[in-house]
Order: sequence, then structure tokens, then C-alpha cells
Amino acid sequence: MTVVTDDLVLVDQHCHGVVTDDLDRERFARLLTESSISSNFDSMVGRALRRWCAPRLGLPAHCSVDDYLDRRREWGWRRVSTELLRAAGVRSWLLDTGLTGADDTPLTEPADFAELAGGDAFEVVRLESVAERIASTDVSVDDFLDFVEIHLRDAIGAGAVGLKSVVAYRTGLELPAEPPTDVEVNAAASAWLRWNGQRLDDPILLAWLVHLGARLSAELHVPLQLHTGFGDDDIRLHRADPALLGDFLRATKSTGATIALLHTWPFHRHAGYLAHLFPHVLVDIGLAIPYVGDRAGAVLAELLELAPFGSVCFSSDGYGLPELHHLGAVLWRRALGRLVDGWIADDVMTAADAELAAVNLSAGNCCRAYGLSAPV
Amino acid sequence: MTVVTDDLVLVDQHCHGVVTDDLDRERFARLLTESSISSNFDSMVGRALRRWCAPRLGLPAHCSVDDYLDRRREWGWRRVSTELLRAAGVRSWLLDTGLTGADDTPLTEPADFAELAGGDAFEVVRLESVAERIASTDVSVDDFLDFVEIHLRDAIGAGAVGLKSVVAYRTGLELPAEPPTDVEVNAAASAWLRWNGQRLDDPILLAWLVHLGARLSAELHVPLQLHTGFGDDDIRLHRADPALLGDFLRATKSTGATIALLHTWPFHRHAGYLAHLFPHVLVDIGLAIPYVGDRAGAVLAELLELAPFGSVCFSSDGYGLPELHHLGAVLWRRALGRLVDGWIADDVMTAADAELAAVNLSAGNCCRAYGLSAPV
Amino acid sequence: MTVVTDDLVLVDQHCHGVVTDDLDRERFARLLTESSISSNFDSMVGRALRRWCAPRLGLPAHCSVDDYLDRRREWGWRRVSTELLRAAGVRSWLLDTGLTGADDTPLTEPADFAELAGGDAFEVVRLESVAERIASTDVSVDDFLDFVEIHLRDAIGAGAVGLKSVVAYRTGLELPAEPPTDVEVNAAASAWLRWNGQRLDDPILLAWLVHLGARLSAELHVPLQLHTGFGDDDIRLHRADPALLGDFLRATKSTGATIALLHTWPFHRHAGYLAHLFPHVLVDIGLAIPYVGDRAGAVLAELLELAPFGSVCFSSDGYGLPELHHLGAVLWRRALGRLVDGWIADDVMTAADAELAAVNLSAGNCCRAYGLSAPV
Repeated sequence: MTVVTDDLVLVDQHCHGVVTDDLDRERFARLLTESSISSNFDSMVGRALRRWCAPRLGLPAHCSVDDYLDRRREWGWRRVSTELLRAAGVRSWLLDTGLTGADDTPLTEPADFAELAGGDAFEVVRLESVAERIASTDVSVDDFLDFVEIHLRDAIGAGAVGLKSVVAYRTGLELPAEPPTDVEVNAAASAWLRWNGQRLDDPILLAWLVHLGARLSAELHVPLQLHTGFGDDDIRLHRADPALLGDFLRATKSTGATIALLHTWPFHRHAGYLAHLFPHVLVDIGLAIPYVGDRAGAVLAELLELAPFGSVCFSSDGYGLPELHHLGAVLWRRALGRLVDGWIADDVMTAADAELAAVNLSAGNCCRAYGLSAPV
Repeated sequence: MTVVTDDLVLVDQHCHGVVTDDLDRERFARLLTESSISSNFDSMVGRALRRWCAPRLGLPAHCSVDDYLDRRREWGWRRVSTELLRAAGVRSWLLDTGLTGADDTPLTEPADFAELAGGDAFEVVRLESVAERIASTDVSVDDFLDFVEIHLRDAIGAGAVGLKSVVAYRTGLELPAEPPTDVEVNAAASAWLRWNGQRLDDPILLAWLVHLGARLSAELHVPLQLHTGFGDDDIRLHRADPALLGDFLRATKSTGATIALLHTWPFHRHAGYLAHLFPHVLVDIGLAIPYVGDRAGAVLAELLELAPFGSVCFSSDGYGLPELHHLGAVLWRRALGRLVDGWIADDVMTAADAELAAVNLSAGNCCRAYGLSAPV
Repeated sequence: MTVVTDDLVLVDQHCHGVVTDDLDRERFARLLTESSISSNFDSMVGRALRRWCAPRLGLPAHCSVDDYLDRRREWGWRRVSTELLRAAGVRSWLLDTGLTGADDTPLTEPADFAELAGGDAFEVVRLESVAERIASTDVSVDDFLDFVEIHLRDAIGAGAVGLKSVVAYRTGLELPAEPPTDVEVNAAASAWLRWNGQRLDDPILLAWLVHLGARLSAELHVPLQLHTGFGDDDIRLHRADPALLGDFLRATKSTGATIALLHTWPFHRHAGYLAHLFPHVLVDIGLAIPYVGDRAGAVLAELLELAPFGSVCFSSDGYGLPELHHLGAVLWRRALGRLVDGWIADDVMTAADAELAAVNLSAGNCCRAYGLSAPV
């Protein structure tokens, strides 16, 4: 008997749209990796793709990459995406719309994605993208600071369910406990705005932005997501360790804000500890799940050493390729299922407790935190 | 066949007293976590509590938290503590007396604890508590510096078997190889004493204090324990990495001092490496054992990748709740038992070698280091 | 059925020569550890020695250390080395010749080693040793800078297949993206040369040297190896984290250089991530394999969470004792074999894919990177 079946409904806390275009081998390869230059078929994720996605496209499990790409071309991106996304068994998807496609490749908007996937799609707004977009227009410092907050409020008013920051990619996660002063923010904004919306790398403005996100999170009841752990080669891994968030999390612990630590690998134990300490912290191992393949269960077990069962969410970080969304879901169910079956077999907890934990980790915790209706 | 049975005697290198008072749900919850604000029933430690402690109180395994707390109330703290501590199979307990109960909740003194637990209890003296207590009286700088050393010597003369520092919670573990100079220490003490025993956060005085501890360790043959790794939200995890102790450990390696690295998770591999390098280093995974539940074996296996079998001790870090002491012992035996059985099954070592390792890890190493008589 | 058999040929990316002398217990013990002062028989590596090396010397598995050392004395270093090295099943060995024996104990030169081992031996040149040797002669700054590069080019022209840096032991791995300027290098060399070849600890010269190594790697197609992760007590673990190499690896990713990250434990997941990002990065868990004993498979599985199958090499870091070379090979095959069998049993990949991965990890990747002919 297994507790986690293919029917276990998931809610994906963090992913992106899929490419609305047919991809040749090179472009496909570029999306199956966090690397900017290497292909990644010969790795755990490459093997998982051939094992789990091929049968969904009517091919034998473990077929060659060439056969897989031929079938993909034959079916076209729309049919492939529909098949893989619908088979993922995900009821709701939270889409980070702040990352546009590389090489101007168009990505689906949330509404299109929802239609393809046959589920609900909700928007998560990326703080840095909003700030950079507003800075690219000709604004005064005062207007810039006002407009960013207004835009974020408007987006949430219009249905966005979360905020997201990629400060880990910019100055790293060692955020100050307190937001910078108005004088500091004004000076920093004034200096940066001269560059008309160039990439926002200023530590003062980033600290201001993340603290603004935490304040809006508390006031409007939308979680603030932070990228943590591994990512593309723009990140410096040691500055993306969520342990560096100690001051920031302690400062926000009683404000009503909710902070979601995304990905977290290889610092997932650190993140689990933070979730243990702070009830306003959510954690996932998003990006890691599709990438580590069969090892997702080992990583999840490490996360759950300290993370409470009410603090962990599922996410796939699927981006561009619906294969990543699909693998995220398939490997999550498989990993969680084995873990839970092991708990029951070892009498670590009752089957009923294990099943409840599985449902909460897969969907319930996310629904509660983001105000979504829970799957039945 | 299993090598580690319920009869394997343990010596607990590091724990605290239990609360001498009956606890309502809220106060109980506050003691089952390192968090200052969240309850922790829905996690590995909460599951382990229901699985392992409930039967000791005459309840079915996995009973509800409410039933458990009802029985606890019915029996009263004294009977519950007696039952759980005696059933732990721990012969000697080393109690850190430097941490007083939260909210003025009284904790057992070592003698009371020994009587409850039916074993021996020994005191470990916390350096920072001694310094802060002395500073709270009206002393001169010279007297302060003298009195701290005299007090520590007297405590050891009166039977304390170890010293302990929580510098990880204050300035972190990147300690200098050399103690500060007299001039530096005098200036720092003079500045700090004006505050009459406020929390000691001065890096110079803390470095002086830890080096004093190392000197007394060498001279009086009592180990100096250092908190490392995770703890309550007063700690910054990245500054509690024992790898930061490189200079300090290298400087003390041939002085005769013994340094015990407590807890160490999630940096237990780092700590195992330090024990490999330095024969004067002891390591444990104390606090982690009750908290990670069924994962204690995985953590222990990682520690033992490099840590010599003669350098690892058992501890529970039980504090306030006798459940934590009990879980520490039960989960340690279970984890170690599976590990050792696996070694034998895989022919990694002989059953005799495995049994010897189990005895040393559970009690022998600790007895040798602290000068206690070893269990038969 | 098992995919990895004793016939699987290995190529050892990184090791050293063996001691050409008979060793008493104390000298033997000193070589079975990274510690400068403790013996290490009572640990995973000590158990592995008795389990795996004893039968090669005609003794029962798990015999006592005394019996083992008696037999070793009886046979003499040459017969013991021949037996253990030949039984390792390693076809080619890449020897780092920059570390001379402790206490003036002589180590085999590559040609002698090859004869003992019955395989091919290739030299890897250590940058810091070359610089220090040249600095110990009476050279001008200009000559010093020229001679280092000339010596390295000559060594490669004469058959050396790789370069190696131990900058992790000196200033740590946080290397700048760009080499220092000529003015900076000249000033630093001028200051350091006054000390006539003392240990090179200057951060400017070390950065210059590693960047020189990367430039020669690109031009002459020889990988540049970097020690990362744990080592003897001269290292500070937290400065040897390969994650600190982010800027350096990003700067060299498209230059044609190949960078091999050696050892990497306990940061092997960080290293696997870097190999995922950068196709010019190779990784191994060298030193960890003999030391962690039965845990080598767990460490390898963590490395392969993100490391592509084409980026991982085998190495033993054997040094002084042929036991370490032997254990590296035996434990690697055992670890890899179990991992691969598990993948096949779980249908993670086909047997053919698993076998190909095993061959590439064990020899193929190394042969391609270093221009060696691959085992059939």
C-alpha cells in the first residue's frame, strides 16, 4: 500500500510560463539547465526526462534524446505542453512573471498557461522587475519610490497572490534587520535613476525593496518569496545561503509578513532550521526537484529533519519547458511517496498522520499561505 | 541479531535540568522547540514524542497530543519526569547549569535531577554566566578578572566536570588563535563593567574567556564545551559553523586542553573533520537527535564519515522537558543500532569491532574525557 | 547482476607517490590521516584498511592492525606496494609531484611508481612548488616571473599532463575574476623574493599564479587542478569551499581552460553545482573516498545530484601509503557499483546508460580531459 498516489493533487508554489514556440535541439538544451553554455542531457535531469516524459509523448521510457526531440517537433509545442502540464496533476500554479524568455523567446502569460494546463494560474510579481521597469521611464526620485509601491499594490489588487525578490542574485541574502532610512534611499535612488532602469544592483535600494515587500506582505496577506540557494551563473552560491537571512527573519517574525524561501538546495537544511525557528517562514526545494532526479527524496528528507510539516510547500520552478513542470510533479510524488511509506513501515507515525502531512506538503500549506481554496 | 539493545548504557555529555512544575499546553509547546514563538507538534520531534514517550506514560503509541498532555497533567511533572528519565537508560548526566528556566520557571538542580533520574549528575559550568554574575556585583576590573578564574577553579574543585561557552551565540566561532593582551582585556572589561553584568557581547572579553577556559581545561583536565551549529533565534547560523574554529583548535591542539563541539548540525561533517584533524576534539550531534527524529541515523552516519570512533559522544541536550532527554536516548540507540547492524551486514567491520565502537560512542569516550568511571 | 565489476578499469586523476621505505607503526599511522598528530586506526578508514587491504597481503579480512603491520614489515614496502597498487585495477595514474615526503621520507618518482603499479604514470606540476623553487635561487623579479612560466611550459612540453594549485591552503579560494596588474605583480614579487623562496602566501602572487595556470590550461590543453574542501590542518575549511570560485570560474568559462576541482568534500554538492553550470569544470571526491569508507556511495550520490555524468572523475589522492591508492579504487568501485545497480533496479535509467556512465566516471572523462588514450 502506498499513501501518495498519482491522484494526490499538487499546488505549485513557484514556476514560470512555457515557451510558445517549437524548439530545436540547441534551444531545448539551453532550457534544460541553469548553465548559460552547456547542455545537460547526460545528468540526472536528462535521464529523468527520458524516463518520465517520453511515455507521455507516446514513446518508450528511456528513448533516445533524438527520438524525444523528433516527437516533440512532430507534435508541436502546444500539444506537448498540454499533455505534460495536464498530466502533472497540478491544480493551481503560481507563476513568477518577472523573468522573460531568453533570446526574446515568448513565454505564456498566466491566462494562456492556465488554459494549456487545465488548472488555475496565479501571478507572483517580481519586485526587481517592477522597479527596473518604472526606472526605465523618466521619473523623479519621489515618483519612482511612490510608483513602485503603487504598482505592487495595484498588482495585488488585480489578483496577484505573492511578491518575489531575486536579491540573492544581486547583493546576496545578508539583508539588514531594518530598512534603510529615507535619506539613504533617496540618495541611492537618485544615483541609480540616472542609468534609466539598468539592472538594480544597489544594496540600499534592494534592502528598501525587500523591506517594502515584507511590509506589503504583512498588510495585504501575500507571501514574499525569496530566491535562495542555487541558480544560474549570475548567482554567487555562498551569498545565497538562507542562513544569512537571520537578522531579516528575526526582524519580520512578528509583523504578520510571510516569507517563502524558494529552492534552498544545497542549503535546504539551513532553510529547514529557519522554518523551525520562525512560523512566518515557508520553504521549498523547488528548482532542485526536477534537477536531482531520483535524489529528490533524499533532499526532502534532509529538509524535513527540522522543517515543520506545516511549513513546506511543493514547487517545480518549471521554466520554459513543460518537461520541468512535469518532472517537478512526478518526482515530488515519487519522493514524497517513498518517504511517507518509509515512515509508516518504520512506525515513525500513523498512516493517517503521514497522509495528512503528504496532503499539506503537496497543496494544503501553499493554499493556506496564499489564500487559495484547498483541493478537496 | 542486533548489537545495540535497550541495555546499552549511555552517558549524556550535555543536557539541562527539567522544569519542576506542571505545564499547560502553551508552556509545554514552548519547550518543545528552539523557536521563541511557534509550536512544534507537527514535525519530526512531535511525531517522535507521540511515538516513543506516550507508551512510557501508559498511553498507546501515536496517541493525540491532547491525550498526552492530559495524562501528563494527571500524573504530574514529578512522576512523568521520573518515568521518562529512568527509562532512558542513562547512567550519568552532565548538566549545564548556566541556562535558567524561561519565564522564571524553576529547573531541577543537579542533585534533584540525579534523584529523579536514578543516575549520577555532574555539573558543567557556563563561562558567560559566571562572568555575567560576577560583573553584576560591584567589582573592579582587576577583581573581575581574578574572580572569574577563581570561581571557575572553585567550581571544578567542588566537582564540576566541565566548562562550557556559548560564544557561538555572541560573536560567533571565528576565535583568534591567541588570547587578547592584558591591555586589551583590561580596557574591554573596564568598558563593559560599567553596565553591571549586562549580557556579555564584547569580542575581546569573550576571546579572553574562551582562552581562559582552554587554559583551565588543560591544567585541570576538564573538557571545554562549545555550542556549535543550530540553536534558538538568538544565534546566527553561519557564524556558528565549527569550521570557523580552525585557528583556535590549531592553537590549542598540543596544550592538553580538550574541546567538545556540541550539536554541530547542520555542520556535523565539518565537526567530524575537525575531530579527524585534532585528537583533543570531541564531537556530538546533541540537540539534533531529539529534533530530527527518525533521521538521527543519517546524521550520525555523516558525522562518522571522518570523525574517529574515539571522538564522538552521545548527548541529548534535553532542556526543561524530560521528553527531550528520553527521546535523545531512545533515538540515539535506534540510530546507532541500525548503523552498526548495517556495518556488520555489509561486512564493513566485525561484530566485535562494531560493538566496541557502539559502547565507546555511547559512554566510553565521554567517561574517559571527563574522568568518569566507565559503565561495566 | 551488477554493472560495475572488478574489471572496470580506472584512471586516477590525482594521487602522489608511495614511500620507498619500510614504516614503523608510528610513521605508518602518521600517513593514514590528514592530522599532524593523531593516529586514525579507529575510524572508517582504519576499518576499511583491515577489511580490504589485509586479504591482499594474505591475511584474513579484519585482522588486527598489529598483524597487518607485522606482515607489512615481513614483505617490505616494495612487495606490499606492488601487490596493492596492481590489485587496484588502475590503468593510469596522474601524480602530483609537488608534495615531497614528510620527515624527508622519499617518495617514488612517476617512473618508479609506474613500474611498481604496472600502469602508466603521468606528472601533474604544482604551481606553488615551482614558484617557490625558482624563488629560492637568486633571481630578479623579471626573471622570476618569466622563469615560472617557462618552467611550466617546459614541464608540459616534457610530458606533464596537468597543473595543480594549492591556493586553498594559502589565501583560500575567493580568487578575483581578473589577474592582478603587472604593477601589482611586480611589487608583490619584489617584496616576496627578499625571503628567498619561503612559503608563498602573498594573495597577489597567488592570484597571478592561478590565472597563469588557467591561461596555460587554455593554451596547452592541460587541466588546472585546484585543491578544494578538506585537507590537513594547514587549511581553513571555510576558505576552501569551491563555491567561492564563482567569479574565477565565470571569468574562465569561455577561455578554453579546464578547471578540475579536487576532493570537494564536505562541499561536494557545491562542486557538483559548479560542474552543472560550467562545462569547463571537472570534479572528484578524491581524498574523501578512502577516508569515508563505506560512505563513499552516499557522498558520490550527493555529488551526482547536479554534476553531469561527463564532469566527474575518479581519484584516490593516495599519498605515501599504497593502501590509500588501493582503498580509493576498491571503495570507488563498490560505491559506484551500488549506486548504479540502484539506478537500474529503480528504473532511473537503462542498464546501458548506467554502464556508460560508470565507464565515463571511472576513466573516460579523465582520459578525454587530459588527452590520455581511453581504456578499451
